[in-house]
Amino acid sequence: MKECDILVIGGGPAGIVSSMSSRAYYPDKKVIVVKSTEENVVPCGIPYIFGNKLDSLEDDFVPCGKMALKSGIELLIDSAVDANYDDKTVIFASGEIIKYDKLIIATGSTPKKVPHSDIKGVHYISKNPKELEVTYKDLESAQNITIIGTGFIGLEVALELYEKGKTISLVGKQLLGKAFDSEFKELIEKIILKDDINHYKAHLKEIRDINGRVSSILTDNGEEIKCDALVVAIGYAPDTKFAKDTGISLRSDFIYVDEYMRTVKNDVFAVGDCAQKRDFVTKRTTGIMLASTASAEARTAVSALYSIKYSKTFSGTIAIFSTVIGDTCFASAGVTQEMAQKEGLDIEVATVVVDDKHPNKLPNSRKQTIKLICMKRSGVVVGAQIIGGIDVGEMINVIGVAIENRVSIYALINLQVATHPLLTSAPTSYPIAQVAQKLDIKINGQR
Amino acid sequence: MKECDILVIGGGPAGIVSSMSSRAYYPDKKVIVVKSTEENVVPCGIPYIFGNKLDSLEDDFVPCGKMALKSGIELLIDSAVDANYDDKTVIFASGEIIKYDKLIIATGSTPKKVPHSDIKGVHYISKNPKELEVTYKDLESAQNITIIGTGFIGLEVALELYEKGKTISLVGKQLLGKAFDSEFKELIEKIILKDDINHYKAHLKEIRDINGRVSSILTDNGEEIKCDALVVAIGYAPDTKFAKDTGISLRSDFIYVDEYMRTVKNDVFAVGDCAQKRDFVTKRTTGIMLASTASAEARTAVSALYSIKYSKTFSGTIAIFSTVIGDTCFASAGVTQEMAQKEGLDIEVATVVVDDKHPNKLPNSRKQTIKLICMKRSGVVVGAQIIGGIDVGEMINVIGVAIENRVSIYALINLQVATHPLLTSAPTSYPIAQVAQKLDIKINGQR
Repeated sequence: MKECDILVIGGGPAGIVSSMSSRAYYPDKKVIVVKSTEENVVPCGIPYIFGNKLDSLEDDFVPCGKMALKSGIELLIDSAVDANYDDKTVIFASGEIIKYDKLIIATGSTPKKVPHSDIKGVHYISKNPKELEVTYKDLESAQNITIIGTGFIGLEVALELYEKGKTISLVGKQLLGKAFDSEFKELIEKIILKDDINHYKAHLKEIRDINGRVSSILTDNGEEIKCDALVVAIGYAPDTKFAKDTGISLRSDFIYVDEYMRTVKNDVFAVGDCAQKRDFVTKRTTGIMLASTASAEARTAVSALYSIKYSKTFSGTIAIFSTVIGDTCFASAGVTQEMAQKEGLDIEVATVVVDDKHPNKLPNSRKQTIKLICMKRSGVVVGAQIIGGIDVGEMINVIGVAIENRVSIYALINLQVATHPLLTSAPTSYPIAQVAQKLDIKINGQR
Repeated sequence: MKECDILVIGGGPAGIVSSMSSRAYYPDKKVIVVKSTEENVVPCGIPYIFGNKLDSLEDDFVPCGKMALKSGIELLIDSAVDANYDDKTVIFASGEIIKYDKLIIATGSTPKKVPHSDIKGVHYISKNPKELEVTYKDLESAQNITIIGTGFIGLEVALELYEKGKTISLVGKQLLGKAFDSEFKELIEKIILKDDINHYKAHLKEIRDINGRVSSILTDNGEEIKCDALVVAIGYAPDTKFAKDTGISLRSDFIYVDEYMRTVKNDVFAVGDCAQKRDFVTKRTTGIMLASTASAEARTAVSALYSIKYSKTFSGTIAIFSTVIGDTCFASAGVTQEMAQKEGLDIEVATVVVDDKHPNKLPNSRKQTIKLICMKRSGVVVGAQIIGGIDVGEMINVIGVAIENRVSIYALINLQVATHPLLTSAPTSYPIAQVAQKLDIKINGQR
């Protein structure tokens, strides 16, 4: 039987941050990480192995072994199968038993599946390197590829394959549905969809095969789409088998955790995709999984392992997210207007469009569209959506800090920002200040 | 005699925001803006007329007339020469007298001068389009150009002229001196200074001429630098002539204002480069002038014209700033370590270096260096310096919101951020969270 102070199960972003932060805060504690595969991929980097941006699957590998060694973390390749929470032991597939003082479960998530997915040529965007390799090779030789699912993974994969010269059919009701309101989704459609990408606003009904190899799919609109390969990207399900099997309570399929990421068992924490997510604003359970959220949860758990160090808990995900398609960046944070209205939040919204360089005659100047959502009474910012150039990737984080710290539009109106001709819109029209002012006038009237 | 509700003197960024925001908040008030020149340039855009990024001086013009017309603002070209604050009237050079209810002084700043600057070929980076045109034309025909001053304007102008094929000599003790600590200044020097740019760590001692045209300068190190043209960019002085002449109190050469941007006279406000600046953290008077600060001050003044609407005052500049040289962005906000130590602030600092894409095999991946400065007791963030790619232009604004809202490192450790392979560092190593954790450990020790 091995012994350690801190045992981390899982080697994804949540597992990596859990173990690295544990070593940083508690250098005399023994940390063991157990993960199921030798190699790890950068999850959000996966789409880029399919296009021209990364040369191979290996380019997307995380050097886990090297990182562990450098940080003095013991790394084992194994699968947790059972646990005794009274004895504080975890039993692994190999027969290994590890005694821990603190346990962090970071078992992640796996792709949601559709029926008949054993047909050859049907693929998921798995985070398992071996499974991903099969997909990678098969898609390389396919020409007509259909993608089911138009969330960000589906879209990113589709557009990378398109860049590689593949013929692409996209099947999904709306692009980036969860993160944006209708008017933004329409803009996104216009920007993303090239003329020669077929978009079917439909759901999958049936997968058809010839001799066990996918040949076409049938949509619920009755259309048949022929394809050599099919990629199903309809989201991920939390991997909670270990937790469930060992009697840890779940809630809505995720491992139940409190705001310090503690499970119902003493000294057992859960972080990342497998752990319950609440929305920061609505406080509803949500299924949104993001590596950045996982990292923040892991830091919260580690800080509370032995004592609670900051009163700042993980009080819900702000679902802060960005992607880039071509040279256009799409980002959102907090609630959308549609979600807010559904949940009965008393909000106000405003949108502004500005030039993202000043003067706008400068090279690469383009429009930046930002929608801000705030509570009507307090003015507290609860959501934003931005479309623009690549600087939007960090601009959404400006809003993120505001949402998490419950900053109001009244504090953003005269926000001090760095502006520069080649980097941002003009100081006179910086969109966050401008949209905050517009909200103020909408809420309180002129004067 | 003309009459209006809100009279704005000055048409730079502070004047533009003052008048536009006045119209937005008080649509039934008559707003008059009086400015001294027909045309206006985007101040921070000036350097880019000298290189290849803008085709002409006109490309950097602000369409003031059109904006005013569209917003229902009356625009006059004139110069304020006198005022009677009891009668609430301003007298202009043309003889025009305007009666106001609220007056906003936004007279801006003019380049600081050196002796003998009437010599031909000696130029300042003036915001007056006519003066700028003379400079523009003369520099076009010059080949050997010496630039005095290595603040951001001096550097930007120098590197644009260099891009245009000019032979450049730079004279100044340190690059971007005020905004960065020594170790950053060294990095900046390494990145910015091409082999064929001559950098003299010296001050100007004497300008020499042949037949009334500049021929060389002499430095305080005794070096003689030959040149066909000389650009002096040693900062700007507030233009307070009108205020001084009409009996408005100054402080350290700027118009004295309180935190609502009110001068000592009833119903008279001052904003922008001419108005007094305090440092947000040290509360010392400072001479830092930025168009973004000016814009924030203008919004503060307008919101307090008739009643005070938000308790958020302009409680000092956070000196938040960015520039980009080549493809490298340099940004800073708040206090530097050196300034903090000089002022006796009890601070801690930490620096991290990360890859700004993930995985780092992605195209254009590069290093991002971020230094964070916080108060030792509270952990409240008071400063940051960042060097990296162009996303740093918005990343510094993430820190800006934190500084202005007195967010502590304890809230940044598990900050939720949007991360994306092509846009940001990995979620597991996002530098703001990482450097906050490093500061926590430095301050509180491990465990």
